Amino acid sequence: MPGPIQSLERAAAILRLLAGGERRLGLSEVSSTLGLAKGTAHGILRTLQQEGFVEQDPVSGKYQLGAELLRLGNSYLDVHELRARALVWADDLARAGGESVYIGVPHHQGVLIVHHVFRPDDSRQVLEVGAMQPLHSTALGKVLAAYDPVAHGEALDAERKAFTSRTVTERADFEALLEITKERGWASDIEETWDGLASVAAPIHGRRRVPVGAVGVTGAIERVCEDGHIRSRLVAAVRDAARSISRDLGAGPF
Amino acid sequence: MPGPIQSLERAAAILRLLAGGERRLGLSEVSSTLGLAKGTAHGILRTLQQEGFVEQDPVSGKYQLGAELLRLGNSYLDVHELRARALVWADDLARAGGESVYIGVPHHQGVLIVHHVFRPDDSRQVLEVGAMQPLHSTALGKVLAAYDPVAHGEALDAERKAFTSRTVTERADFEALLEITKERGWASDIEETWDGLASVAAPIHGRRRVPVGAVGVTGAIERVCEDGHIRSRLVAAVRDAARSISRDLGAGPF
Repeated sequence: MPGPIQSLERAAAILRLLAGGERRLGLSEVSSTLGLAKGTAHGILRTLQQEGFVEQDPVSGKYQLGAELLRLGNSYLDVHELRARALVWADDLARAGGESVYIGVPHHQGVLIVHHVFRPDDSRQVLEVGAMQPLHSTALGKVLAAYDPVAHGEALDAERKAFTSRTVTERADFEALLEITKERGWASDIEETWDGLASVAAPIHGRRRVPVGAVGVTGAIERVCEDGHIRSRLVAAVRDAARSISRDLGAGPF
Repeated sequence: MPGPIQSLERAAAILRLLAGGERRLGLSEVSSTLGLAKGTAHGILRTLQQEGFVEQDPVSGKYQLGAELLRLGNSYLDVHELRARALVWADDLARAGGESVYIGVPHHQGVLIVHHVFRPDDSRQVLEVGAMQPLHSTALGKVLAAYDPVAHGEALDAERKAFTSRTVTERADFEALLEITKERGWASDIEETWDGLASVAAPIHGRRRVPVGAVGVTGAIERVCEDGHIRSRLVAAVRDAARSISRDLGAGPF
C-alpha cells in the first residue's frame, strides 16, 4: 500500500495554519512555521490559489483561505445524513425549548457544529455551523466523549483547559463526569465553558445504535437553569429530540 | 517559477467531483471519471481521508466529502472582510424589506453566497451560505457580471441555460441587460431563475471603488413586485444597503 502523499499533507498543514491564529500570512511566515523551504511552500500555495483553496491579498501579498472551501463545506453539509434527518427535529426543539439548538459531531479532538437553529426570538445571532467546541467542557462534547470511543480517548488525553472556574480539568473528576453522563443519558454544562451560559445535550445513535453525534440547547443560565440545575422540561425536550433523530437514522428503539 | 503540483490538482479535482452530482463515489468511479490509475486515485483518497477532507462509508466503502472542509469553510467566512462589515447592514435590510437577504461574491463562473439572512417571519428556511447561483439569470449574478471584469467575461462565455421561459439567454440581449444594469446601478431577476421568485441586487465596492460583491433581496413576486416591476421602495432599500456596506469597506462616496 502506498504511503500518504507528502505534498498533500503539506497542503493540508498550510490550510490548517491559515484557519487558526493570524489567518493572513506571508510566504515567509508559512514556510518558517511549517519548516518548509520557501520554494516548496510557494509551489503549494500557488497551486492551492489556482484551485481556489487559498486567496492572496493583492496589496499585502499575504495568503488567506479561499472561497472554494466554503463551497465544498456546503456540499459536505448537503450530503450529511445526520444533519438532513435532524433539521425538522432541531427546529421543533428550538421552538419547544425557546433556546438555540446545536448538533455536533466528533472531529479533530473536538465537536464540529453541523447544524445550528437560532433561538426563536428576533435577536441578532451569529451562525456557528462549522465552528468547533471543546470536548471536555461543553454538553455536546461530554456526550460525545462519553459515547464515542475515539472522542473518549481524545478527551482523556487532551489538555483540559479551564475556561471558567467551574471547568472540570482533573482526569479522575472528568472520568467520573463521563460515567454520570452515560448513566443518566445526557450531559450538562453550567458555566463550564462560557460565563452566563448553560447547555444540555443528549446522544444521537445511528444504525446498530452506533453513536454518531449529539444534540443540545444552549442559553442564558437565568432561563435554562432553576436552583442551579438544568430545568427538567429542557432535559426532557432535548432527550426527546435525540431519540426522534436516532429513530429517524435507523437506530433501534432499545 | 515551478509549475502547479500535479497531486494537488488531482486532489482538488477529486473534491470537486465529490461536491457535484452523486456525491458518494467508489474508488473505480473516481478513477475512471477523472482518468486516473486506480492506485493513484487510491493514494490521493487515502491521504485526503487521513486529513479529514474525505470520509469513507464503512459499509459501502464509498467516499464522500469530509468534515474538515466545513471547519475550513467556516474559517474562510470568519476572515471575510466583506461579510464581517455587511452583517449589520444585511440584518437591517432584511428587517426593512421583510425579505431574505443574500450577499454574493464571484467564484468559479458563478455567485458564491457568503451571507444569508432569513426572511424575518417565523417560517422554516434553509440556510444557503456556501451555495452557488448562476451569473446570467440572478440579480446578484447580473450585478457581478456587469461590474466585475472576470465575472463579465465568464458570463458572456458561459452557456446561458434557460431556467424558465423568462431567462435571457441570447448574447446580444444579455449584453444589453448588463448595459442597463450598469446605467441604473442595480439588477433584477423576475422569474428568470426560479418560478414565483423575484430578486433585486446592487453592487458593493471596496477601496478604490473596486467591485467586491453584491447584496440583494429575494422573495415571492406577489410581495416583491408591483405591476410587473420590483417595488421601488425595495430597490431603494437594497441600494442604500449596498452604499452603506461599500462605505464601510472604505469605498469613496463618488
